[in-house]
Amino acid sequence: MPSEFEIIGRYFTRPARTASLGVGDDAALVRPSPGTELAVSTDLLVEGRHFRAGADPRKLGHKALAVNLSDVAAMGATPRWATLALSLPDVDEAWISAFAEGLFALAGRFGTELIGGDTVRGPRSMCICILGEVPQGRALRRDGAHADDDLWVSGELGGAALALARPGIEEAERRLDQPEPRVALGTRLLGRATSAIDVSDGFAQDLGHILERSGCGALVQYEQLPKCAAFARIGQPELERECVLAGGDDYELVFTAPVTERAALEALAAELSLPLTRVGAIHAGAPSVSIVDSRGHEVRVSHGFDHFAP
Amino acid sequence: MPSEFEIIGRYFTRPARTASLGVGDDAALVRPSPGTELAVSTDLLVEGRHFRAGADPRKLGHKALAVNLSDVAAMGATPRWATLALSLPDVDEAWISAFAEGLFALAGRFGTELIGGDTVRGPRSMCICILGEVPQGRALRRDGAHADDDLWVSGELGGAALALARPGIEEAERRLDQPEPRVALGTRLLGRATSAIDVSDGFAQDLGHILERSGCGALVQYEQLPKCAAFARIGQPELERECVLAGGDDYELVFTAPVTERAALEALAAELSLPLTRVGAIHAGAPSVSIVDSRGHEVRVSHGFDHFAP
Repeated sequence: MPSEFEIIGRYFTRPARTASLGVGDDAALVRPSPGTELAVSTDLLVEGRHFRAGADPRKLGHKALAVNLSDVAAMGATPRWATLALSLPDVDEAWISAFAEGLFALAGRFGTELIGGDTVRGPRSMCICILGEVPQGRALRRDGAHADDDLWVSGELGGAALALARPGIEEAERRLDQPEPRVALGTRLLGRATSAIDVSDGFAQDLGHILERSGCGALVQYEQLPKCAAFARIGQPELERECVLAGGDDYELVFTAPVTERAALEALAAELSLPLTRVGAIHAGAPSVSIVDSRGHEVRVSHGFDHFAP
Repeated sequence: MPSEFEIIGRYFTRPARTASLGVGDDAALVRPSPGTELAVSTDLLVEGRHFRAGADPRKLGHKALAVNLSDVAAMGATPRWATLALSLPDVDEAWISAFAEGLFALAGRFGTELIGGDTVRGPRSMCICILGEVPQGRALRRDGAHADDDLWVSGELGGAALALARPGIEEAERRLDQPEPRVALGTRLLGRATSAIDVSDGFAQDLGHILERSGCGALVQYEQLPKCAAFARIGQPELERECVLAGGDDYELVFTAPVTERAALEALAAELSLPLTRVGAIHAGAPSVSIVDSRGHEVRVSHGFDHFAP
């Protein structure tokens, strides 16, 4: 049976590219670019909570990194380096190899380097910490939204939650298993958006974080929200509302921008081949979200995902 | 029952001091000092593997951070920022509060700021990622040992392993539960030591990593190794050898330095009130460790800790 060191050497060690010193010392060494600050985020995925026992390890490797890349994207930062701590109940080399494949495939697409980690025996879980670079003072924080800003959403919402509610719908499953972190969008929003967050716990709840931090309210047009195309076929409006408003795991960006940015953002959407949809507006007042249908009636919002909810 | 966000807000959020943006956004923002590079390391602790079910949460908070501080110390870096991902089976606020107390008490002593994290429900485990700063190009790597360098060890060895083998010996328990990361020593070794590692998996195995990376051998005088004082009372030479040579979790620094540094290192030991002991020498040749007793006989070395060993 391979040892901890052999596993790290065989599956998780690649020659250092941008790191001064990569995997294999007490710590990795990296040199951040002058004039940048670092965006630092960490996410922990636990079997039975964030993924099912028996989940495809290649998809897990992708997802574990994707959720972290998404956090960095929501700051407008460029992902550079990541560490991985992996707890596994046994040494299943096929599993480890597939997990590493999924992770490195996504990392390679974004030029993100795995610089270190830890491998232990225990319940299956994985913790990634990611470091991104952003020009000093320009990050997309949650506290920058202003009254009269437009509210925008990238891509489409609700697909990941739909996959959990109705397994077997391919486009929804893909949203759940293989989320696409909006890294290029994030960096291109610097200087245009006033605030941003990624949709991990549900649109309404995540938007709520921007409003609390920025001290303002939002009015959202439910009909304008971009929705996973499968909902049109299924025709269950209650399920759709639940998934679109309270479903997590979509990893789209919700952001605010001045009205003067509309044309530039439409051009950006075309350039990135990524829909950017104006779904409402920010207003002065208490930090709450009103979501209304086409007749102006309030749409009920359930709560988003709370990791300690029963 | 408090939510994930309330737990983070109540126990793990302190005002940002050195971070540009602390806990509460998609990522934290930090500005590394000009002329430094970052030492990045992560460690995952799992219940039943790294700590017992029912372990004192205050001590766990200390230890989870200490093992990471130790990695940064072994690079000669100054710890600056840390993230914490915490998986808990339930919301036991007394437990969380005590854990946070232990962690922040140690963090405060070293000016290390908790800048972000993740809280999920799952088997009890904790993953910390730490960022330290070190002047560019000067870190204490594992690959810098040279033939004729002296081999040094800080503090004393074997106490943590003794606590596992013979519970109830107070000085040994303290070594296991409350390890003291050698941060000041690490930074003061810059420019003096040629390589360093911290003793986490066992002296012989950890020294082996230096030898492999540096491409040289070492001769160690067993009698000269600094040992936990309790061994003298217990008088079980086999247990002592096992704990001192193969016991992990001591978090002392093993380092190499040219013979010209002897006086400076002895002065440093006095200044830091921390024993620094010369225990052997590096020589050209295959990367292997010979440990000999006072009569020149080889002392048997068991293996160090392998996280995937049965």
